[in-house]
Amino acid sequence: MEFFDRAETWSREEIERVQLVRLRNTVQQASGSPFYAARLKEAGIAPADIRSLDDLRSVPPTTKNDLREQYPAGLVAVPREQLVRLHASSGTTGAPTVVHHTQNDLNSWADLVARSMYMVGVRPDDVFQNTSGYGLFTGGLGIHYGAERLGCHTIPAGPGNTKRQIKFIRDFQTTVLHIIPSYALYLGAALEEEGLSGAELPCRVALIGAEPHTEEIRQRIEQMLGLKAYNSYGLSEMNGPGVAFECTHQTGMHVWEDAFIPEIVNPDTLEPVADGEVGELVMTTLCRQGMPILRYRTRDLTRFLSGECACGRMHRRIDRILGRADDMMIIKGVNIYPMQIEQVLMGFPEVGENYVIELVSEDFIDQLTVKVEIRDGYFVEDMRVLTGLQKAIVRQLRDEILVTPRVDLVQTGSLPKSEGKAVRVIDRRGKE
Amino acid sequence: MEFFDRAETWSREEIERVQLVRLRNTVQQASGSPFYAARLKEAGIAPADIRSLDDLRSVPPTTKNDLREQYPAGLVAVPREQLVRLHASSGTTGAPTVVHHTQNDLNSWADLVARSMYMVGVRPDDVFQNTSGYGLFTGGLGIHYGAERLGCHTIPAGPGNTKRQIKFIRDFQTTVLHIIPSYALYLGAALEEEGLSGAELPCRVALIGAEPHTEEIRQRIEQMLGLKAYNSYGLSEMNGPGVAFECTHQTGMHVWEDAFIPEIVNPDTLEPVADGEVGELVMTTLCRQGMPILRYRTRDLTRFLSGECACGRMHRRIDRILGRADDMMIIKGVNIYPMQIEQVLMGFPEVGENYVIELVSEDFIDQLTVKVEIRDGYFVEDMRVLTGLQKAIVRQLRDEILVTPRVDLVQTGSLPKSEGKAVRVIDRRGKE
Repeated sequence: MEFFDRAETWSREEIERVQLVRLRNTVQQASGSPFYAARLKEAGIAPADIRSLDDLRSVPPTTKNDLREQYPAGLVAVPREQLVRLHASSGTTGAPTVVHHTQNDLNSWADLVARSMYMVGVRPDDVFQNTSGYGLFTGGLGIHYGAERLGCHTIPAGPGNTKRQIKFIRDFQTTVLHIIPSYALYLGAALEEEGLSGAELPCRVALIGAEPHTEEIRQRIEQMLGLKAYNSYGLSEMNGPGVAFECTHQTGMHVWEDAFIPEIVNPDTLEPVADGEVGELVMTTLCRQGMPILRYRTRDLTRFLSGECACGRMHRRIDRILGRADDMMIIKGVNIYPMQIEQVLMGFPEVGENYVIELVSEDFIDQLTVKVEIRDGYFVEDMRVLTGLQKAIVRQLRDEILVTPRVDLVQTGSLPKSEGKAVRVIDRRGKE
Repeated sequence: MEFFDRAETWSREEIERVQLVRLRNTVQQASGSPFYAARLKEAGIAPADIRSLDDLRSVPPTTKNDLREQYPAGLVAVPREQLVRLHASSGTTGAPTVVHHTQNDLNSWADLVARSMYMVGVRPDDVFQNTSGYGLFTGGLGIHYGAERLGCHTIPAGPGNTKRQIKFIRDFQTTVLHIIPSYALYLGAALEEEGLSGAELPCRVALIGAEPHTEEIRQRIEQMLGLKAYNSYGLSEMNGPGVAFECTHQTGMHVWEDAFIPEIVNPDTLEPVADGEVGELVMTTLCRQGMPILRYRTRDLTRFLSGECACGRMHRRIDRILGRADDMMIIKGVNIYPMQIEQVLMGFPEVGENYVIELVSEDFIDQLTVKVEIRDGYFVEDMRVLTGLQKAIVRQLRDEILVTPRVDLVQTGSLPKSEGKAVRVIDRRGKE
């Protein structure tokens, strides 16, 4: 097996030894920022108090709200002239969250992305088409610098313009795509419309991320585009892409533990959950100079996968993102994640790519409606067939989410398509 | 004086000696591409035939149409695996024009941009906000890599979202902007709406390019944003930005002659024009490996400025772009460039930022209408004042373009605004 980085071959002991050294450095470095100087002092923690990895749990977590309140630069831990880049969330509500980087930060970020891509077989002679938005969004420049570090022939295509994406894939013989799952499905549908099949495309690998999605969605993407799709996890607060990435075994994403410490906690108590239990992912940077972040609450739900990966890497694996702590819907008092509904829907071969979850309140009672597109071949005239399918979907959804939904079956193309992130949940409760 | 690069201090003799060496290498390198192998053979030119810079004139020019016909890779002169980036025009009409780069090409491009920025006082401790579109367009990544080479704190803001641009300028204390002229005016107007003046902004320098504009427009930008605005010239076929750039004397743009050979020719005869005469700029790359281009017809109109620049650099200066050979309008048989009209309009202090040129044909006779926004303070009720202004504009336009236009004076805000490149000419002839 080929590795990009020696850190991929470390044993658990080596990983944890390096983590402790880097954690101590990071706490020291962080205390150079106004925010952490105050926060650590308040918690009575000096950098020298970190004597084991377990001591990290004494550090108070950092939230998105902290980052907003510290806008524009309260977490910066180096002199301003050492900063060479910033990335920011759109900030449509409230202040944007901003992350500042030094040149070293950018270099190690690019290395992590390059390592992730190399792990799934991307090599310097690949042609890499990046369909992520460039600019302040980290998905564009983040992956771009990783591909450049590898020496791929990079097409900075950006999002949208699907006809041109397909033209470039064919004309430049693109072998590797970076693409969000909903756009991958959209691209697949556009291919079909042009009478092309995935098998005719030169693409071999897709890096997919930024949107929670199910295993069924991944398999559809693989089948429609004729390639292997690998899950990527990242968030701008932890650089962006290159935090955790699937290896070729596609059994969960290895967190690059030489660069981050992941924890999974109960979002209410902040206590660690049992191995294998779902909780909120909390992350600490280990290599960042410009703006180290300690115990960042990602709001992303996942769990550690137990056992060793067949690839031999000892970096722990997390499951695909199972939802956002914030996406939780409370319906008739029951906690439901949209991902649970998607997982049921995608188990039916009759179900197409598009669905919408609508919440209304009727006479003060929550009503959940799921509108589902049925694939062309299955949308038959015989009402009895459709009614049978509809009942089966209702039954399986009820078993999964413990609430009985309405299910509307509609023809392919009747629901709004999107070239960007798909809007799956429309909550009209209290808005009529 | 500080220089970024030793090449800035070369004498004419040194520049020309290096140019000849690099030109011979470039012709040799180009002949490794399918396109130039055939083209040079057809013209009976072997690389060894280039014995002086004058011998370049025996090489047939390359046109945009050649680039389109050679899509996707007919001009590539290196093995495919050495390519690491491509940029492409939008290709809204016909095939896109594509330029492929090696890592060396990207490095020397970044150096040229860094040198240009350094020349106007940009330093590592500057905060640089890039309002260009990223992705396939070269204005975004091209300038971005130059700023990174210098070590500026770079905000990859991208275009649009003007409220956020202003917020970032103020919150991150942006000192250097990269911005197209029409958007700089738009930003200035947005500032005024927020009750801010340019003097309150931290910006010191704006790099402006990508759109032909007049000296009056530059001065308005400088006044509105409270900074110095420096003209930048580039085109994706010659990398993008970093081809020619103004020094602090603001008397024309130095072409980086260690990396390019510029010629100015009569677009009909391809003969060189006399020094100081306007003609079409023709450019040859001297450092490009992936895709060298010989005698590219830019279609941009300019002229060499004579005399030595007070800055001491011996790299020849070109005037601001005076129009596109393709933008030429033929009205009643007269050749007219939109820039001529803009230059007249901007000479009137009453005239605002926005104007539109409309061409219609009435009873088979061309009719030119110029709609002009009048600044708020000048749009008075007294018709006689407005009529006097209108007549003065008509008279000056007629003197400049030899055709008598209609001139409509309208209130500020009545013409469509654009956040992107301004559409100034609407030709409705033959379309009614």
